[in-house]
Amino acid sequence: MTKRNIVVSEATGAYIEDQPVEIVERKGIGHPDSLCDGIAEAISQAYTHWCETNLGGPLHHNFDKVQLVAGESSPRFGGGDVIKPIRIQIAGRGTPEYNGTKVPMDTIAIQAAKDYVRRTMKYLDPDKHMVIDCFAGRGSSELISQVVQVTANDTSFGVSHWPRSGLEEAVYQTCNYITSTLRDKFPVGEDVKVMGCRIGNDITLTVALPFIASRIADAADYEEAKRAAQEAIQIFAEKITPDRNVKVMVNTADQAKRGDYYLTVTGTSAEMGDDGEVGRGNRASGLITPMRSTSLEAPCGKNPVSHVGKVYNALALDTCRAIINRVPEVKEVTMQILSQIGHPIDQPLVCNAQVRTKSGVLSEETRAAVTAVIDEHLANIADVRAKIRAGEITLF
Amino acid sequence: MTKRNIVVSEATGAYIEDQPVEIVERKGIGHPDSLCDGIAEAISQAYTHWCETNLGGPLHHNFDKVQLVAGESSPRFGGGDVIKPIRIQIAGRGTPEYNGTKVPMDTIAIQAAKDYVRRTMKYLDPDKHMVIDCFAGRGSSELISQVVQVTANDTSFGVSHWPRSGLEEAVYQTCNYITSTLRDKFPVGEDVKVMGCRIGNDITLTVALPFIASRIADAADYEEAKRAAQEAIQIFAEKITPDRNVKVMVNTADQAKRGDYYLTVTGTSAEMGDDGEVGRGNRASGLITPMRSTSLEAPCGKNPVSHVGKVYNALALDTCRAIINRVPEVKEVTMQILSQIGHPIDQPLVCNAQVRTKSGVLSEETRAAVTAVIDEHLANIADVRAKIRAGEITLF
Amino acid sequence: MTKRNIVVSEATGAYIEDQPVEIVERKGIGHPDSLCDGIAEAISQAYTHWCETNLGGPLHHNFDKVQLVAGESSPRFGGGDVIKPIRIQIAGRGTPEYNGTKVPMDTIAIQAAKDYVRRTMKYLDPDKHMVIDCFAGRGSSELISQVVQVTANDTSFGVSHWPRSGLEEAVYQTCNYITSTLRDKFPVGEDVKVMGCRIGNDITLTVALPFIASRIADAADYEEAKRAAQEAIQIFAEKITPDRNVKVMVNTADQAKRGDYYLTVTGTSAEMGDDGEVGRGNRASGLITPMRSTSLEAPCGKNPVSHVGKVYNALALDTCRAIINRVPEVKEVTMQILSQIGHPIDQPLVCNAQVRTKSGVLSEETRAAVTAVIDEHLANIADVRAKIRAGEITLF
Amino acid sequence: MTKRNIVVSEATGAYIEDQPVEIVERKGIGHPDSLCDGIAEAISQAYTHWCETNLGGPLHHNFDKVQLVAGESSPRFGGGDVIKPIRIQIAGRGTPEYNGTKVPMDTIAIQAAKDYVRRTMKYLDPDKHMVIDCFAGRGSSELISQVVQVTANDTSFGVSHWPRSGLEEAVYQTCNYITSTLRDKFPVGEDVKVMGCRIGNDITLTVALPFIASRIADAADYEEAKRAAQEAIQIFAEKITPDRNVKVMVNTADQAKRGDYYLTVTGTSAEMGDDGEVGRGNRASGLITPMRSTSLEAPCGKNPVSHVGKVYNALALDTCRAIINRVPEVKEVTMQILSQIGHPIDQPLVCNAQVRTKSGVLSEETRAAVTAVIDEHLANIADVRAKIRAGEITLF
Repeated sequence: MTKRNIVVSEATGAYIEDQPVEIVERKGIGHPDSLCDGIAEAISQAYTHWCETNLGGPLHHNFDKVQLVAGESSPRFGGGDVIKPIRIQIAGRGTPEYNGTKVPMDTIAIQAAKDYVRRTMKYLDPDKHMVIDCFAGRGSSELISQVVQVTANDTSFGVSHWPRSGLEEAVYQTCNYITSTLRDKFPVGEDVKVMGCRIGNDITLTVALPFIASRIADAADYEEAKRAAQEAIQIFAEKITPDRNVKVMVNTADQAKRGDYYLTVTGTSAEMGDDGEVGRGNRASGLITPMRSTSLEAPCGKNPVSHVGKVYNALALDTCRAIINRVPEVKEVTMQILSQIGHPIDQPLVCNAQVRTKSGVLSEETRAAVTAVIDEHLANIADVRAKIRAGEITLF
Repeated sequence: MTKRNIVVSEATGAYIEDQPVEIVERKGIGHPDSLCDGIAEAISQAYTHWCETNLGGPLHHNFDKVQLVAGESSPRFGGGDVIKPIRIQIAGRGTPEYNGTKVPMDTIAIQAAKDYVRRTMKYLDPDKHMVIDCFAGRGSSELISQVVQVTANDTSFGVSHWPRSGLEEAVYQTCNYITSTLRDKFPVGEDVKVMGCRIGNDITLTVALPFIASRIADAADYEEAKRAAQEAIQIFAEKITPDRNVKVMVNTADQAKRGDYYLTVTGTSAEMGDDGEVGRGNRASGLITPMRSTSLEAPCGKNPVSHVGKVYNALALDTCRAIINRVPEVKEVTMQILSQIGHPIDQPLVCNAQVRTKSGVLSEETRAAVTAVIDEHLANIADVRAKIRAGEITLF
Repeated sequence: MTKRNIVVSEATGAYIEDQPVEIVERKGIGHPDSLCDGIAEAISQAYTHWCETNLGGPLHHNFDKVQLVAGESSPRFGGGDVIKPIRIQIAGRGTPEYNGTKVPMDTIAIQAAKDYVRRTMKYLDPDKHMVIDCFAGRGSSELISQVVQVTANDTSFGVSHWPRSGLEEAVYQTCNYITSTLRDKFPVGEDVKVMGCRIGNDITLTVALPFIASRIADAADYEEAKRAAQEAIQIFAEKITPDRNVKVMVNTADQAKRGDYYLTVTGTSAEMGDDGEVGRGNRASGLITPMRSTSLEAPCGKNPVSHVGKVYNALALDTCRAIINRVPEVKEVTMQILSQIGHPIDQPLVCNAQVRTKSGVLSEETRAAVTAVIDEHLANIADVRAKIRAGEITLF
Repeated sequence: MTKRNIVVSEATGAYIEDQPVEIVERKGIGHPDSLCDGIAEAISQAYTHWCETNLGGPLHHNFDKVQLVAGESSPRFGGGDVIKPIRIQIAGRGTPEYNGTKVPMDTIAIQAAKDYVRRTMKYLDPDKHMVIDCFAGRGSSELISQVVQVTANDTSFGVSHWPRSGLEEAVYQTCNYITSTLRDKFPVGEDVKVMGCRIGNDITLTVALPFIASRIADAADYEEAKRAAQEAIQIFAEKITPDRNVKVMVNTADQAKRGDYYLTVTGTSAEMGDDGEVGRGNRASGLITPMRSTSLEAPCGKNPVSHVGKVYNALALDTCRAIINRVPEVKEVTMQILSQIGHPIDQPLVCNAQVRTKSGVLSEETRAAVTAVIDEHLANIADVRAKIRAGEITLF
């Protein structure tokens, strides 16, 4: 019998909504760290796709090291230039050759990075504003799809919880609202940062919102655009958190007297002074939640078949969601999965779930139901892999 | 009166030692991620030292983006070469010029990186095995020592807890023991990884330990050295955790039949196949603790005066230690500090301490005593800055 | 009176057409060295244009160091990929800032390089097949247009001769014919090399001609295309050199039995295995003429106002042409101009012309006429500068 | 019978010593271009040595593309820093693997470059003042020592003449005197440039001579050192050219009033503002001689076995010297050798020698004697290869 080592226990701390203070952050898709995450994952997907198409299966790889070196720009009301391009330095490991077929690894990586920037960023042009170079080297050349039973070759954690707290939901949704809907209506870019803080019943959302210099005529224009954007965000945030008092503040670091505004040429601070790296921004949950049990794993760019850390983080989230959907008695679940080197990855060293029930008591029946969902998800771990490869699971 | 916003509450979850499962990891000083952390912090210290000596005070900087691109090597029993050097790409922001004086920023950064490697690594030679390049650019040129009241210009967290759990202590001490004492006696390098797992009363320490190829004659020699090292580590670990059952396992991924051993030319997997970045390894506590409240902040390389994330993480740890020392009733404390943009950094948005007392009850007296320690540490935040600059606080 | 130091003497060696052996080469515009030359000069022109438009005059610069690191490709009949992009490393000196205005030097340089490749190369895509990076640094910031009297700050030569010999004309015209007219009709790229050798009355033109893999179905198709191209080139070359026996040979290094053909994905060997640098290919005359007096100066990328080497090479060619046009008695002229540090550049240390007359004797009248043309050209040296800036003088 | 295609004809132009004007230049070993030449050749030698030691013979390679990107420095009387290191970018082609043995190509290249700088430059420290990186890629992996009959795979020239003219000798010897003997006595570096100009019987040697900032106390000290150095050079130059009037001028671009001196931290202008490339400085003769028949070939870094251009240039010089030594009637000889693609390299397309005899007439006997020397040198072409590999032939 397969040994899953599932441990389900009762959550013992205060419920997140009952804690006096809560702190949550999300870096938008245009933040330098998020750009690195997105590029790394886009490379992993493109590389896997190429290998499947041309070699019949994915190859081992880990493109989880991407460094963004900030450029230099001269934004001013009505215009400005990128003086020095943003430099993207792709590192990591892949396979340059398999069974005599050369894999255009560098070309795939660079084009995937450019394509990602093109479909994500409205004003940042990868050919004009960026120099993208690839330093990725040779790794293992195992064709990983042919391995029936993938074995953990590292000790890694996967961690998740579900559902999001009210503050987490507010931060997550508000940030994505800005970089999608709001961006269509206002001259703003994607390097948004939403910092949420709840003290008791009062939520403050502090938003950093980059305006596009060429589309703002002057200081008055800027102030008006900022005011209107703040209003729109306030309305949106109130809808997301009807039960709490919420206050939205935009670009609080502006100092009009000194001429300091959050003005950019391309919509991201990567154009001047803000470097980035993979795994330094949002967790796999899309949030930074210092008061939660969190994995430090940087899943983006890692191979979606055998990398335990990546698969377990995605699996933990997927399983937590399933528990909430299928075991109505569970109010909140937090899960840690730890790999066991040398064992199949569906047989972790331990899979630990802390369950908070609606009744406040963890019955044997509920414990069994939760265990069953976990066991099923471990058995069907291939489903999670497939979702990652299809880009159906967001990882940052 | 200064508004510190200190909130002291009772810890409500299960005590860490009573939880059924615990997972802790430490990456040794020679791990690619740790090398990046160490180099970044060494650059910040050397840069600050140069500025203090030549300009009368530190300059704004953030050298917290360092990327390590793995080299290529050919280790074999008795020898081997570094085929392709390890590439260190320093990024981040500094000040190339101040009041007409040119700051040799790139030279300082590269030399600091080399010096750090030289004093940390026994077999890795920065001039022979590495190419170290600096892409750091221009940032703000404010002379930050002259700013009397440093203001938070970002929303950042600092998080810490104290004391370490038994497992945490075991992982931390064992890892450091290997890279100091053990390294003098055995042909091993510094890219050690100690993964600790406690299930109930049973602790397993899984150790990855790189052997030095030139000093191991053959497979038999390797197996004997590994056995002896494992024995020494086992003895050490048992001393650290007398109250638990502890089992040490070394290089479990070895496959003698396939000739797979953890053999290196330089003592780090950075020589072949393992890339690294700042902030991807240990937290400021020196550990990776997925089951604890954790900051994602990467403190290494950031400026020790005004960078809120760096200062708050160090401050949180320092304060937690002081609480344990000075308030005997407190058994364990966890603290989060959140900055408030535009306010002095000794006035955080909230400073949140969860206290677990020996009696199980948080009395008003204890609450007041804890609050007093926190208030004092916030008031004397300059002390923490000085300790960081002197390298007295380890950050990874 | 302005001291021009003009020395006109009689040419004493054998006339080039009477020498028994003659060797001449031209590297086509797609050769890695020529690409570097073209990119360097395009950057100089774009940079000068930007400065004139935005600052009122050109700034000092020398972008005459461009390195091309070959990529890796996998051409095969019917297709193939660029595996690893071609890397262009722009170096040289420019001015990042002038009177408080930031000059987007890196962006100008990279875009100029891309634009140049786009308008020169039919199959090579700078965004898909190349990584173009700029390492150019700070040089002098003098606004050189405001300098009325430009002074030589270096000892440099300019050398030229006119007219071209019959072989030189054949090599020059044939090479350009291939990369323009022939390229429209045949699936060939621009990395053409024409090596001409004349022994007595017999000329051999050895042509290296890159075929485009995706447009050649198989070996038979290749052989047919090569045959037809060779025929077209033969016909063209015969027209150019009606007085000599000429034989064209194409891709003589092909070895059909071993499957060795000159097949490329992009039309240049830069895609695999052939690196390049500025100044390593054609001279300012567009030719490599080892049996002629030749300047080693690499004019491409240098500033067209004050760089003596660049200006003198263009001036020498311009003056030689004018002498031939205006002094009918002169059959051939070779000229060297040497700058004198610290003196205005219209006052060289020596301007040396060796004249071969139709009559075989250099009369005082002819000497005076030649001297007058030279004197006039030195006086109007600004005309040559303007022609260079307008791209009217080809330099490689 | 082997077909050597040797053509010996009478030199027809004016003898170099009788020409009215002569211009010659030499860039010293510390000039940025010379540094690139020296590094490239050192890499070729080290790589060949490694392959011979470990693989039994040399491998194909061409490391003839090295780019030096100038650093930034702040020299001042009594001291100064290197602000930004000099960047050396090694390109070219080599073989990363042969018969399963990995060749540490990058490591060899970087160490050879450092070793070369260390043994050539007195003040420039490759570990402190330079970043040396290798971008060299994969080329052909043929083991070239096993090829009995090396075949030309390219059309290349070799050109040389002997003896040097009086001016050439003066420039060559003076430059080397400065970077050896004079450097031991004066605080000067190796980035010397000697420009020689002869008009009639008057020779001017214009010398650029970098002084070492840390060893010059002030302007007066500089002026005194410069005066003394100029005097020493004058004395030396007069000894070399007893038959001509010679005048030495040092650092004529200095402008004491503006504080402009040729002051450096490291002895080379590569530390600030002067970039370099292989093949942009001295020819294989060690000189730049625009009035001579000259090869543009950059021999440094090319493989010494099969690269026609390199071997032919060295062979031409070696043969010219031998002709002068062994055929007393010959006063001066100039030689061009042109390869024939697909033919053994001892069978050139043409080997062309222009001979100037003491009697003024080229007798059949002399012609035969010259032909015999040439034929012998072509037959023993392996000797030249061995001399190159041993570093016995200087190439720049």
